[in-house]
Amino acid sequence: MRRCQLQTLERNATFRFSPEANDKSGADPQDNRTTEPFMNADMARCIETCLNCYKTCLSTAMNHCLEAGGKHTAPAHFRLMMACAEICRTSAHFMLINTPHHKHTCRECAEICAECAKDCKTIGDMDECVSACEACAESCRKMAA
Amino acid sequence: MRRCQLQTLERNATFRFSPEANDKSGADPQDNRTTEPFMNADMARCIETCLNCYKTCLSTAMNHCLEAGGKHTAPAHFRLMMACAEICRTSAHFMLINTPHHKHTCRECAEICAECAKDCKTIGDMDECVSACEACAESCRKMAA
Amino acid sequence: MRRCQLQTLERNATFRFSPEANDKSGADPQDNRTTEPFMNADMARCIETCLNCYKTCLSTAMNHCLEAGGKHTAPAHFRLMMACAEICRTSAHFMLINTPHHKHTCRECAEICAECAKDCKTIGDMDECVSACEACAESCRKMAA
Amino acid sequence: MRRCQLQTLERNATFRFSPEANDKSGADPQDNRTTEPFMNADMARCIETCLNCYKTCLSTAMNHCLEAGGKHTAPAHFRLMMACAEICRTSAHFMLINTPHHKHTCRECAEICAECAKDCKTIGDMDECVSACEACAESCRKMAA
Repeated sequence: MRRCQLQTLERNATFRFSPEANDKSGADPQDNRTTEPFMNADMARCIETCLNCYKTCLSTAMNHCLEAGGKHTAPAHFRLMMACAEICRTSAHFMLINTPHHKHTCRECAEICAECAKDCKTIGDMDECVSACEACAESCRKMAA
Repeated sequence: MRRCQLQTLERNATFRFSPEANDKSGADPQDNRTTEPFMNADMARCIETCLNCYKTCLSTAMNHCLEAGGKHTAPAHFRLMMACAEICRTSAHFMLINTPHHKHTCRECAEICAECAKDCKTIGDMDECVSACEACAESCRKMAA
Repeated sequence: MRRCQLQTLERNATFRFSPEANDKSGADPQDNRTTEPFMNADMARCIETCLNCYKTCLSTAMNHCLEAGGKHTAPAHFRLMMACAEICRTSAHFMLINTPHHKHTCRECAEICAECAKDCKTIGDMDECVSACEACAESCRKMAA
Repeated sequence: MRRCQLQTLERNATFRFSPEANDKSGADPQDNRTTEPFMNADMARCIETCLNCYKTCLSTAMNHCLEAGGKHTAPAHFRLMMACAEICRTSAHFMLINTPHHKHTCRECAEICAECAKDCKTIGDMDECVSACEACAESCRKMAA
Protein backbone atom coordinates (compact mmCIF):
# COMPACT_ATOMS: atom_id res chain seq x y z
CA MET A 1 0.00 0.00 0.00
CA ARG A 2 2.82 2.30 0.85
CA ARG A 3 4.47 1.26 -2.38
CA CYS A 4 1.22 1.79 -4.17
CA GLN A 5 0.94 5.34 -2.99
CA LEU A 6 4.40 6.12 -4.17
CA GLN A 7 3.63 4.80 -7.61
CA THR A 8 0.54 6.89 -7.59
CA LEU A 9 2.44 9.92 -6.60
CA GLU A 10 5.00 9.38 -9.30
CA ARG A 11 2.44 8.73 -11.97
CA ASN A 12 0.40 11.77 -11.11
CA ALA A 13 2.94 14.20 -9.92
CA THR A 14 4.99 14.29 -13.08
CA PHE A 15 7.87 15.86 -11.28
CA ARG A 16 11.39 14.66 -11.20
CA PHE A 17 12.17 13.53 -7.71
CA SER A 18 15.61 13.26 -6.32
CA PRO A 19 16.61 9.58 -5.89
CA GLU A 20 15.97 9.47 -2.16
CA ALA A 21 12.67 11.09 -2.95
CA ASN A 22 13.17 13.75 -0.49
CA ASP A 23 15.21 14.31 2.56
CA LYS A 24 15.37 17.85 1.27
CA SER A 25 17.48 17.58 -1.71
CA GLY A 26 19.67 14.63 -1.06
CA ALA A 27 20.41 15.11 -4.73
CA ASP A 28 23.55 13.33 -5.79
CA PRO A 29 26.16 16.02 -6.35
CA GLN A 30 27.60 13.80 -9.07
CA ASP A 31 24.32 13.76 -10.88
CA ASN A 32 24.89 15.63 -14.10
CA ARG A 33 21.41 15.66 -15.52
CA THR A 34 20.78 19.11 -16.83
CA THR A 35 17.25 19.18 -15.48
CA GLU A 36 17.21 19.49 -11.72
CA PRO A 37 14.37 18.13 -9.64
CA PHE A 38 11.74 20.86 -9.57
CA MET A 39 10.62 20.33 -6.04
CA ASN A 40 10.80 17.92 -3.16
CA ALA A 41 8.26 15.18 -2.54
CA ASP A 42 6.45 17.03 0.27
CA MET A 43 5.62 19.89 -2.00
CA ALA A 44 4.59 17.57 -4.82
CA ARG A 45 2.22 15.85 -2.40
CA CYS A 46 0.79 19.14 -1.18
CA ILE A 47 0.10 20.22 -4.77
CA GLU A 48 -1.83 16.98 -5.28
CA THR A 49 -3.79 17.48 -2.09
CA CYS A 50 -4.65 21.06 -3.03
CA LEU A 51 -5.78 20.16 -6.53
CA ASN A 52 -7.82 17.29 -5.17
CA CYS A 53 -9.56 19.62 -2.73
CA TYR A 54 -10.09 22.20 -5.49
CA LYS A 55 -11.79 19.54 -7.63
CA THR A 56 -13.91 18.19 -4.83
CA CYS A 57 -15.13 21.53 -3.50
CA LEU A 58 -15.83 23.01 -6.91
CA SER A 59 -17.66 20.00 -8.30
CA THR A 60 -19.57 19.44 -5.08
CA ALA A 61 -20.70 23.06 -4.99
CA MET A 62 -21.62 23.23 -8.66
CA ASN A 63 -23.33 19.84 -8.77
CA HIS A 64 -24.45 18.49 -5.43
CA CYS A 65 -25.12 21.81 -3.67
CA LEU A 66 -26.82 23.53 -6.61
CA GLU A 67 -29.04 20.53 -7.16
CA ALA A 68 -29.86 20.01 -3.49
CA GLY A 69 -30.62 23.66 -2.75
CA GLY A 70 -31.77 24.69 0.73
CA LYS A 71 -28.90 24.81 3.22
CA HIS A 72 -26.55 23.82 0.39
CA THR A 73 -27.06 27.10 -1.45
CA ALA A 74 -27.20 29.31 1.63
CA PRO A 75 -24.92 32.21 0.64
CA ALA A 76 -22.43 31.79 3.50
CA HIS A 77 -21.97 28.06 2.84
CA PHE A 78 -21.79 28.32 -0.92
CA ARG A 79 -19.30 31.20 -0.79
CA LEU A 80 -17.12 29.23 1.60
CA MET A 81 -17.09 26.28 -0.79
CA MET A 82 -16.11 28.53 -3.68
CA ALA A 83 -13.50 30.38 -1.62
CA CYS A 84 -12.05 27.01 -0.63
CA ALA A 85 -11.87 25.86 -4.25
CA GLU A 86 -10.18 29.11 -5.28
CA ILE A 87 -7.54 29.23 -2.53
CA CYS A 88 -6.67 25.58 -3.20
CA ARG A 89 -6.20 26.38 -6.87
CA THR A 90 -4.04 29.39 -6.00
CA SER A 91 -1.92 27.55 -3.45
CA ALA A 92 -1.19 24.78 -5.95
CA HIS A 93 -0.30 27.46 -8.50
CA PHE A 94 2.10 29.18 -6.07
CA MET A 95 3.90 25.91 -5.38
CA LEU A 96 4.09 25.08 -9.08
CA ILE A 97 5.68 28.42 -9.93
CA ASN A 98 8.07 27.85 -7.04
CA THR A 99 7.62 31.16 -5.27
CA PRO A 100 8.63 31.36 -1.58
CA HIS A 101 5.28 33.07 -0.94
CA HIS A 102 3.60 29.65 -1.24
CA LYS A 103 4.01 29.39 2.54
CA HIS A 104 1.54 32.23 3.03
CA THR A 105 -1.05 30.97 0.57
CA CYS A 106 -0.72 27.51 2.13
CA ARG A 107 -1.34 28.97 5.59
CA GLU A 108 -4.50 30.70 4.38
CA CYS A 109 -5.50 27.57 2.49
CA ALA A 110 -5.22 25.51 5.68
CA GLU A 111 -7.52 27.90 7.51
CA ILE A 112 -10.19 28.03 4.83
CA CYS A 113 -10.10 24.25 4.32
CA ALA A 114 -10.52 23.62 8.05
CA GLU A 115 -13.50 25.96 8.13
CA CYS A 116 -15.00 24.39 5.02
CA ALA A 117 -14.59 20.86 6.42
CA LYS A 118 -16.43 21.91 9.56
CA ASP A 119 -19.23 23.58 7.64
CA CYS A 120 -19.70 20.60 5.32
CA LYS A 121 -19.79 18.26 8.32
CA THR A 122 -22.51 20.36 9.96
CA ILE A 123 -24.65 20.49 6.83
CA GLY A 124 -24.06 16.80 6.17
CA ASP A 125 -24.06 14.56 3.12
CA MET A 126 -20.71 15.83 1.89
CA ASP A 127 -18.26 13.27 3.22
CA GLU A 128 -15.87 13.47 0.29
CA CYS A 129 -15.65 17.20 0.69
CA VAL A 130 -14.97 16.88 4.41
CA SER A 131 -12.16 14.37 3.78
CA ALA A 132 -10.59 16.37 0.97
CA CYS A 133 -10.68 19.58 3.02
CA GLU A 134 -9.24 17.93 6.14
CA ALA A 135 -6.43 16.32 4.18
CA CYS A 136 -5.65 19.62 2.47
CA ALA A 137 -5.73 21.58 5.72
CA GLU A 138 -3.22 19.19 7.26
CA SER A 139 -0.93 19.14 4.25
CA CYS A 140 -0.97 22.94 3.85
CA ARG A 141 -0.38 23.51 7.55
CA LYS A 142 2.85 21.53 7.30
CA MET A 143 3.90 23.33 4.15
CA ALA A 144 3.34 26.69 5.84
CA ALA A 145 5.43 25.80 8.86
CA MET B 1 -10.86 65.20 -12.74
CA ARG B 2 -12.11 63.97 -9.41
CA ARG B 3 -15.57 63.83 -10.94
CA CYS B 4 -14.18 62.08 -13.95
CA GLN B 5 -12.64 59.37 -11.84
CA LEU B 6 -15.92 58.78 -10.12
CA GLN B 7 -17.66 58.32 -13.43
CA THR B 8 -14.92 55.96 -14.35
CA LEU B 9 -15.41 53.96 -11.25
CA GLU B 10 -19.10 53.74 -11.83
CA ARG B 11 -18.74 52.74 -15.43
CA ASN B 12 -16.21 50.07 -14.69
CA ALA B 13 -17.28 48.83 -11.36
CA THR B 14 -20.77 47.73 -12.33
CA PHE B 15 -21.71 47.12 -8.75
CA ARG B 16 -24.59 48.41 -6.79
CA PHE B 17 -23.22 50.78 -4.23
CA SER B 18 -24.86 51.57 -0.96
CA PRO B 19 -27.12 54.63 -1.33
CA GLU B 20 -24.62 56.93 0.37
CA ALA B 21 -21.88 55.96 -1.99
CA ASN B 22 -23.79 56.05 -5.21
CA ASP B 23 -25.57 59.25 -6.02
CA LYS B 24 -26.96 57.82 -9.24
CA SER B 25 -28.54 54.68 -7.96
CA GLY B 26 -31.76 56.36 -7.05
CA ALA B 27 -32.15 53.51 -4.62
CA ASP B 28 -35.04 54.17 -2.32
CA PRO B 29 -33.88 53.89 1.30
CA GLN B 30 -37.29 52.43 2.04
CA ASP B 31 -36.75 49.83 -0.63
CA ASN B 32 -37.02 46.43 0.97
CA ARG B 33 -35.78 44.26 -1.85
CA THR B 34 -33.88 41.35 -0.49
CA THR B 35 -30.87 42.02 -2.68
CA GLU B 36 -28.47 44.19 -0.77
CA PRO B 37 -25.83 46.32 -2.40
CA PHE B 38 -23.08 43.92 -3.38
CA MET B 39 -20.27 45.86 -1.85
CA ASN B 40 -19.23 49.28 -0.70
CA ALA B 41 -17.20 51.68 -2.78
CA ASP B 42 -13.90 50.92 -1.03
CA MET B 43 -14.11 47.30 -1.99
CA ALA B 44 -15.14 48.12 -5.55
CA ARG B 45 -12.08 50.35 -5.81
CA CYS B 46 -9.79 47.68 -4.39
CA ILE B 47 -11.08 45.17 -6.94
CA GLU B 48 -10.20 47.65 -9.69
CA THR B 49 -6.74 48.22 -8.26
CA CYS B 50 -6.11 44.49 -7.98
CA LEU B 51 -7.25 43.75 -11.52
CA ASN B 52 -5.18 46.64 -12.82
CA CYS B 53 -2.10 45.27 -11.08
CA TYR B 54 -2.87 41.76 -12.35
CA LYS B 55 -3.01 43.09 -15.92
CA THR B 56 0.11 45.17 -15.61
CA CYS B 57 2.29 42.51 -13.98
CA LEU B 58 1.15 39.72 -16.26
CA SER B 59 1.48 41.66 -19.49
CA THR B 60 4.78 43.21 -18.45
CA ALA B 61 6.22 39.80 -17.57
CA MET B 62 4.94 38.07 -20.68
CA ASN B 63 5.84 40.88 -23.07
CA HIS B 64 8.46 43.30 -21.81
CA CYS B 65 10.41 40.90 -19.58
CA LEU B 66 10.38 37.95 -21.96
CA GLU B 67 11.53 40.17 -24.80
CA ALA B 68 14.17 42.00 -22.80
CA GLY B 69 15.68 38.86 -21.23
CA GLY B 70 18.71 39.15 -18.93
CA LYS B 71 17.75 40.43 -15.48
CA HIS B 72 14.12 40.48 -16.61
CA THR B 73 13.92 36.71 -16.93
CA ALA B 74 16.04 35.92 -13.90
CA PRO B 75 13.98 33.19 -12.17
CA ALA B 76 13.50 35.05 -8.87
CA HIS B 77 12.26 38.22 -10.58
CA PHE B 78 10.05 36.51 -13.11
CA ARG B 79 8.47 34.27 -10.47
CA LEU B 80 7.76 37.30 -8.32
CA MET B 81 6.01 39.03 -11.22
CA MET B 82 3.88 35.95 -11.87
CA ALA B 83 3.13 35.44 -8.17
CA CYS B 84 2.06 39.08 -7.99
CA ALA B 85 -0.27 38.71 -10.98
CA GLU B 86 -1.80 35.56 -9.50
CA ILE B 87 -2.40 36.89 -5.97
CA CYS B 88 -3.96 40.06 -7.42
CA ARG B 89 -6.31 37.91 -9.50
CA THR B 90 -7.20 35.82 -6.48
CA SER B 91 -7.75 38.79 -4.17
CA ALA B 92 -10.09 40.39 -6.68
CA HIS B 93 -11.90 37.04 -6.96
CA PHE B 94 -12.29 36.78 -3.18
CA MET B 95 -13.81 40.25 -2.97
CA LEU B 96 -16.13 39.54 -5.89
CA ILE B 97 -17.47 36.37 -4.29
CA ASN B 98 -17.90 38.35 -1.08
CA THR B 99 -16.11 36.00 1.28
CA PRO B 100 -14.86 37.43 4.61
CA HIS B 101 -11.53 35.70 3.88
CA HIS B 102 -10.77 38.46 1.38
CA LYS B 103 -9.02 40.26 4.23
CA HIS B 104 -6.36 37.56 4.35
CA THR B 105 -5.78 37.39 0.61
CA CYS B 106 -5.62 41.19 0.54
CA ARG B 107 -2.99 41.18 3.28
CA GLU B 108 -0.86 38.71 1.35
CA CYS B 109 -1.49 40.66 -1.85
CA ALA B 110 -0.21 43.85 -0.20
CA GLU B 111 3.02 42.11 0.81
CA ILE B 112 3.72 40.57 -2.57
CA CYS B 113 2.88 43.81 -4.41
CA ALA B 114 5.22 45.82 -2.18
CA GLU B 115 8.01 43.35 -2.85
CA CYS B 116 7.30 43.33 -6.58
CA ALA B 117 7.29 47.14 -6.74
CA LYS B 118 10.69 47.22 -5.06
CA ASP B 119 12.13 44.56 -7.35
CA CYS B 120 10.84 46.27 -10.48
CA LYS B 121 12.29 49.58 -9.28
CA THR B 122 15.70 47.98 -8.78
CA ILE B 123 15.73 46.34 -12.19
CA GLY B 124 14.40 49.49 -13.82
CA ASP B 125 12.42 50.30 -16.93
CA MET B 126 9.14 49.09 -15.46
CA ASP B 127 7.55 52.28 -14.14
CA GLU B 128 3.98 51.22 -14.87
CA CYS B 129 4.48 48.03 -12.96
CA VAL B 130 5.97 49.90 -10.00
CA SER B 131 2.99 52.29 -9.89
CA ALA B 132 0.39 49.56 -10.27
CA CYS B 133 2.01 47.46 -7.54
CA GLU B 134 2.37 50.38 -5.13
CA ALA B 135 -1.24 51.42 -5.63
CA CYS B 136 -2.42 47.85 -5.12
CA ALA B 137 -0.28 47.37 -2.02
CA GLU B 138 -1.78 50.47 -0.45
CA SER B 139 -5.34 49.61 -1.39
CA CYS B 140 -5.05 46.00 -0.18
CA ARG B 141 -3.39 47.04 3.07
CA LYS B 142 -6.45 49.16 3.89
CA MET B 143 -8.82 46.39 2.90
CA ALA B 144 -6.98 43.94 5.17
CA ALA B 145 -7.11 46.23 8.18
CA MET C 1 -16.97 63.11 -21.31
CA ARG C 2 -15.26 61.62 -24.32
CA ARG C 3 -12.00 62.98 -22.98
CA CYS C 4 -12.92 61.54 -19.63
CA GLN C 5 -13.35 58.07 -21.08
CA LEU C 6 -10.00 58.28 -22.77
CA GLN C 7 -8.34 59.18 -19.51
CA THR C 8 -10.13 56.24 -18.03
CA LEU C 9 -8.86 53.92 -20.68
CA GLU C 10 -5.34 55.16 -20.26
CA ARG C 11 -5.47 55.01 -16.49
CA ASN C 12 -6.87 51.53 -16.41
CA ALA C 13 -5.31 49.92 -19.36
CA THR C 14 -1.71 50.57 -18.37
CA PHE C 15 -0.46 49.43 -21.72
CA ARG C 16 1.76 51.25 -24.09
CA PHE C 17 -0.14 51.75 -27.29
CA SER C 18 1.43 52.01 -30.67
CA PRO C 19 0.57 55.39 -32.24
CA GLU C 20 -0.58 53.73 -35.47
CA ALA C 21 -2.89 51.36 -33.73
CA ASN C 22 -4.54 53.78 -31.42
CA ASP C 23 -5.99 56.75 -33.20
CA LYS C 24 -7.55 58.03 -29.99
CA SER C 25 -4.63 57.93 -27.62
CA GLY C 26 -3.13 61.21 -28.61
CA ALA C 27 0.23 59.59 -27.99
CA ASP C 28 3.10 61.62 -29.31
CA PRO C 29 4.35 59.95 -32.52
CA GLN C 30 7.78 61.37 -31.69
CA ASP C 31 7.86 59.38 -28.50
CA ASN C 32 10.98 57.25 -28.63
CA ARG C 33 10.62 55.10 -25.56
CA THR C 34 12.57 51.94 -26.02
CA THR C 35 9.90 49.63 -24.72
CA GLU C 36 7.65 48.49 -27.51
CA PRO C 37 3.89 48.71 -27.29
CA PHE C 38 2.55 45.51 -25.79
CA MET C 39 -0.67 45.49 -27.74
CA ASN C 40 -2.89 47.67 -29.86
CA ALA C 41 -5.83 49.65 -28.55
CA ASP C 42 -8.48 47.19 -29.74
CA MET C 43 -6.99 44.41 -27.71
CA ALA C 44 -6.56 46.64 -24.66
CA ARG C 45 -10.24 47.53 -24.91
CA CYS C 46 -11.28 43.90 -25.28
CA ILE C 47 -9.30 43.00 -22.16
CA GLU C 48 -11.20 45.70 -20.27
CA THR C 49 -14.52 44.45 -21.58
CA CYS C 50 -13.70 40.86 -20.64
CA LEU C 51 -12.59 41.75 -17.13
CA ASN C 52 -15.67 43.91 -16.65
CA CYS C 53 -17.90 41.02 -17.70
CA TYR C 54 -15.94 38.64 -15.44
CA LYS C 55 -16.51 40.96 -12.48
CA THR C 56 -20.17 41.50 -13.23
CA CYS C 57 -21.10 37.86 -13.81
CA LEU C 58 -19.14 36.55 -10.85
CA SER C 59 -20.37 39.13 -8.36
CA THR C 60 -23.95 38.92 -9.64
CA ALA C 61 -23.96 35.13 -9.32
CA MET C 62 -22.31 35.07 -5.92
CA ASN C 63 -24.35 37.91 -4.47
CA HIS C 64 -27.60 38.66 -6.25
CA CYS C 65 -28.37 35.14 -7.50
CA LEU C 66 -27.38 33.31 -4.32
CA GLU C 67 -29.46 35.70 -2.23
CA ALA C 68 -32.46 35.71 -4.54
CA GLY C 69 -32.57 31.92 -4.97
CA GLY C 70 -35.32 30.32 -7.05
CA LYS C 71 -34.71 30.71 -10.80
CA HIS C 72 -31.45 32.48 -9.96
CA THR C 73 -29.88 29.35 -8.50
CA ALA C 74 -31.36 26.92 -11.00
CA PRO C 75 -28.32 24.78 -11.89
CA ALA C 76 -28.36 25.56 -15.63
CA HIS C 77 -28.52 29.32 -15.08
CA PHE C 78 -25.98 29.45 -12.28
CA ARG C 79 -23.51 27.27 -14.18
CA LEU C 80 -23.86 29.50 -17.22
CA MET C 81 -23.07 32.57 -15.11
CA MET C 82 -19.99 30.88 -13.67
CA ALA C 83 -18.87 29.57 -17.06
CA CYS C 84 -19.24 33.09 -18.44
CA ALA C 85 -17.14 34.57 -15.63
CA GLU C 86 -14.45 31.93 -16.17
CA ILE C 87 -14.16 32.22 -19.95
CA CYS C 88 -13.99 36.02 -19.66
CA ARG C 89 -11.15 35.69 -17.17
CA THR C 90 -9.36 33.23 -19.44
CA SER C 91 -9.81 35.31 -22.59
CA ALA C 92 -8.40 38.38 -20.85
CA HIS C 93 -5.49 36.21 -19.65
CA PHE C 94 -4.80 34.95 -23.17
CA MET C 95 -4.68 38.48 -24.54
CA LEU C 96 -2.45 39.65 -21.70
CA ILE C 97 0.08 36.89 -22.33
CA ASN C 98 -0.07 37.77 -26.01
CA THR C 99 -0.70 34.30 -27.41
CA PRO C 100 -2.18 34.05 -30.92
CA HIS C 101 -4.66 31.53 -29.50
CA HIS C 102 -6.56 34.42 -27.93
CA LYS C 103 -8.68 34.45 -31.09
CA HIS C 104 -10.12 31.06 -30.18
CA THR C 105 -10.82 31.86 -26.55
CA CYS C 106 -12.40 35.15 -27.67
CA ARG C 107 -14.65 33.28 -30.10
CA GLU C 108 -15.83 30.95 -27.35
CA CYS C 109 -16.17 33.89 -24.97
CA ALA C 110 -18.44 35.68 -27.45
CA GLU C 111 -20.71 32.63 -27.67
CA ILE C 112 -21.00 32.09 -23.94
CA CYS C 113 -21.54 35.80 -23.26
CA ALA C 114 -24.32 35.99 -25.84
CA GLU C 115 -26.02 32.99 -24.28
CA CYS C 116 -25.59 34.40 -20.77
CA ALA C 117 -27.01 37.80 -21.80
CA LYS C 118 -30.08 36.06 -23.21
CA ASP C 119 -30.57 33.92 -20.13
CA CYS C 120 -30.20 36.87 -17.75
CA LYS C 121 -32.71 38.85 -19.83
CA THR C 122 -35.24 36.01 -19.60
CA ILE C 123 -34.86 35.64 -15.85
CA GLY C 124 -34.89 39.39 -15.36
CA ASP C 125 -33.54 41.81 -12.76
CA MET C 126 -29.97 41.51 -14.02
CA ASP C 127 -29.61 44.49 -16.34
CA GLU C 128 -25.95 45.12 -15.54
CA CYS C 129 -25.12 41.54 -16.36
CA VAL C 130 -27.02 41.71 -19.65
CA SER C 131 -25.15 44.89 -20.66
CA ALA C 132 -21.75 43.58 -19.65
CA CYS C 133 -22.30 40.29 -21.48
CA GLU C 134 -23.57 41.96 -24.63
CA ALA C 135 -20.65 44.38 -24.71
CA CYS C 136 -18.20 41.54 -24.16
CA ALA C 137 -19.80 39.34 -26.82
CA GLU C 138 -19.47 42.12 -29.37
CA SER C 139 -15.92 42.99 -28.45
CA CYS C 140 -14.77 39.36 -28.45
CA ARG C 141 -16.50 38.64 -31.74
CA LYS C 142 -14.41 41.36 -33.37
CA MET C 143 -11.24 40.15 -31.72
CA ALA C 144 -11.88 36.61 -32.99
CA ALA C 145 -12.43 37.72 -36.58
CA MET D 1 -0.75 -2.90 -10.10
CA ARG D 2 -4.11 -2.71 -11.80
CA ARG D 3 -5.71 -2.64 -8.38
CA CYS D 4 -3.26 0.02 -7.37
CA GLN D 5 -4.26 2.29 -10.24
CA LEU D 6 -7.90 1.85 -9.40
CA GLN D 7 -7.29 2.93 -5.88
CA THR D 8 -5.47 5.87 -7.28
CA LEU D 9 -8.34 6.84 -9.48
CA GLU D 10 -10.81 6.52 -6.68
CA ARG D 11 -8.66 8.34 -4.19
CA ASN D 12 -7.85 11.20 -6.50
CA ALA D 13 -10.94 11.58 -8.53
CA THR D 14 -13.30 12.01 -5.60
CA PHE D 15 -16.32 11.72 -7.82
CA ARG D 16 -19.17 9.32 -7.55
CA PHE D 17 -19.26 7.27 -10.70
CA SER D 18 -22.34 5.74 -12.12
CA PRO D 19 -21.94 1.94 -12.34
CA GLU D 20 -22.84 1.93 -16.03
CA ALA D 21 -20.30 4.51 -16.92
CA ASN D 22 -17.42 3.05 -15.05
CA ASP D 23 -16.87 -0.61 -15.70
CA LYS D 24 -13.83 -0.65 -13.46
CA SER D 25 -15.20 0.98 -10.38
CA GLY D 26 -16.37 -2.18 -8.75
CA ALA D 27 -19.14 -0.05 -7.30
CA ASP D 28 -21.93 -2.08 -5.84
CA PRO D 29 -24.91 -1.89 -8.26
CA GLN D 30 -27.15 -2.20 -5.21
CA ASP D 31 -25.75 0.98 -3.79
CA ASN D 32 -28.68 3.32 -3.29
CA ARG D 33 -27.02 6.54 -2.21
CA THR D 34 -29.26 9.44 -2.95
CA THR D 35 -26.61 11.69 -4.39
CA GLU D 36 -26.35 11.24 -8.12
CA PRO D 37 -23.05 10.70 -9.88
CA PHE D 38 -21.58 14.06 -10.79
CA MET D 39 -20.00 12.91 -14.00
CA ASN D 40 -19.07 9.79 -15.90
CA ALA D 41 -15.66 8.17 -15.76
CA ASP D 42 -14.49 9.58 -19.11
CA MET D 43 -14.95 13.12 -17.89
CA ALA D 44 -13.32 12.38 -14.55
CA ARG D 45 -10.31 10.99 -16.42
CA CYS D 46 -10.16 14.01 -18.72
CA ILE D 47 -10.15 16.34 -15.72
CA GLU D 48 -7.19 14.39 -14.33
CA THR D 49 -5.36 14.57 -17.64
CA CYS D 50 -5.97 18.31 -17.92
CA LEU D 51 -4.80 19.04 -14.40
CA ASN D 52 -1.75 16.88 -14.92
CA CYS D 53 -0.88 18.79 -18.08
CA TYR D 54 -1.51 22.11 -16.29
CA LYS D 55 0.91 21.11 -13.53
CA THR D 56 3.56 19.83 -15.90
CA CYS D 57 3.52 22.79 -18.30
CA LEU D 58 3.40 25.42 -15.56
CA SER D 59 6.13 23.90 -13.41
CA THR D 60 8.31 23.13 -16.42
CA ALA D 61 8.01 26.69 -17.71
CA MET D 62 8.56 28.34 -14.34
CA ASN D 63 11.41 26.04 -13.28
CA HIS D 64 13.18 24.23 -16.08
CA CYS D 65 12.65 26.83 -18.83
CA LEU D 66 13.38 29.90 -16.71
CA GLU D 67 16.55 28.28 -15.39
CA ALA D 68 17.72 26.97 -18.75
CA GLY D 69 17.10 30.22 -20.63
CA GLY D 70 17.99 30.49 -24.33
CA LYS D 71 15.45 28.73 -26.55
CA HIS D 72 13.47 27.87 -23.42
CA THR D 73 12.59 31.50 -22.71
CA ALA D 74 12.10 32.52 -26.33
CA PRO D 75 8.83 34.50 -26.15
CA ALA D 76 6.87 32.30 -28.58
CA HIS D 77 7.79 29.09 -26.77
CA PHE D 78 7.28 30.42 -23.26
CA ARG D 79 3.92 31.96 -24.14
CA LEU D 80 2.79 28.66 -25.66
CA MET D 81 3.72 26.83 -22.46
CA MET D 82 1.79 29.35 -20.36
CA ALA D 83 -1.19 29.33 -22.73
CA CYS D 84 -1.21 25.53 -22.53
CA ALA D 85 -1.17 25.58 -18.71
CA GLU D 86 -4.01 28.12 -18.66
CA ILE D 87 -6.32 26.38 -21.14
CA CYS D 88 -5.81 23.06 -19.31
CA ARG D 89 -6.79 24.74 -16.05
CA THR D 90 -9.84 26.29 -17.68
CA SER D 91 -10.96 23.08 -19.38
CA ALA D 92 -10.74 21.18 -16.12
CA HIS D 93 -12.73 23.99 -14.48
CA PHE D 94 -15.44 23.82 -17.16
CA MET D 95 -15.85 20.07 -16.69
CA LEU D 96 -15.94 20.45 -12.91
CA ILE D 97 -18.71 23.03 -13.05
CA ASN D 98 -20.53 20.74 -15.46
CA THR D 99 -21.25 23.24 -18.20
CA PRO D 100 -22.04 21.88 -21.68
CA HIS D 101 -19.53 24.43 -23.04
CA HIS D 102 -16.73 22.17 -21.81
CA LYS D 103 -16.76 20.62 -25.26
CA HIS D 104 -15.51 23.86 -26.77
CA THR D 105 -12.80 24.50 -24.21
CA CYS D 106 -11.70 20.87 -24.59
CA ARG D 107 -11.47 21.29 -28.35
CA GLU D 108 -9.26 24.37 -27.96
CA CYS D 109 -7.28 22.60 -25.25
CA ALA D 110 -6.57 19.69 -27.60
CA GLU D 111 -5.22 22.08 -30.23
CA ILE D 112 -2.97 24.02 -27.91
CA CYS D 113 -1.67 20.86 -26.25
CA ALA D 114 -0.82 19.29 -29.60
CA GLU D 115 1.07 22.42 -30.59
CA CYS D 116 2.85 22.59 -27.25
CA ALA D 117 3.88 18.92 -27.44
CA LYS D 118 5.39 19.54 -30.88
CA ASP D 119 7.23 22.66 -29.76
CA CYS D 120 8.64 20.94 -26.66
CA LYS D 121 9.79 18.01 -28.79
CA THR D 122 11.62 20.34 -31.16
CA ILE D 123 13.37 22.23 -28.37
CA GLY D 124 14.14 18.98 -26.56
CA ASP D 125 14.80 17.98 -22.98
CA MET D 126 11.15 18.23 -21.97
CA ASP D 127 9.92 14.65 -22.29
CA GLU D 128 7.45 14.86 -19.41
CA CYS D 129 5.87 17.91 -20.94
CA VAL D 130 5.61 16.21 -24.34
CA SER D 131 3.90 13.16 -22.77
CA ALA D 132 1.52 15.19 -20.63
CA CYS D 133 0.52 17.40 -23.59
CA GLU D 134 0.01 14.45 -25.93
CA ALA D 135 -2.11 12.60 -23.38
CA CYS D 136 -4.17 15.71 -22.75
CA ALA D 137 -4.63 16.45 -26.45
CA GLU D 138 -5.96 12.93 -27.01
CA SER D 139 -8.25 12.98 -24.00
CA CYS D 140 -9.66 16.43 -24.80
CA ARG D 141 -10.19 15.54 -28.45
CA LYS D 142 -12.46 12.69 -27.39
CA MET D 143 -14.29 14.86 -24.89
CA ALA D 144 -14.91 17.49 -27.59
CA ALA D 145 -16.34 14.98 -30.06
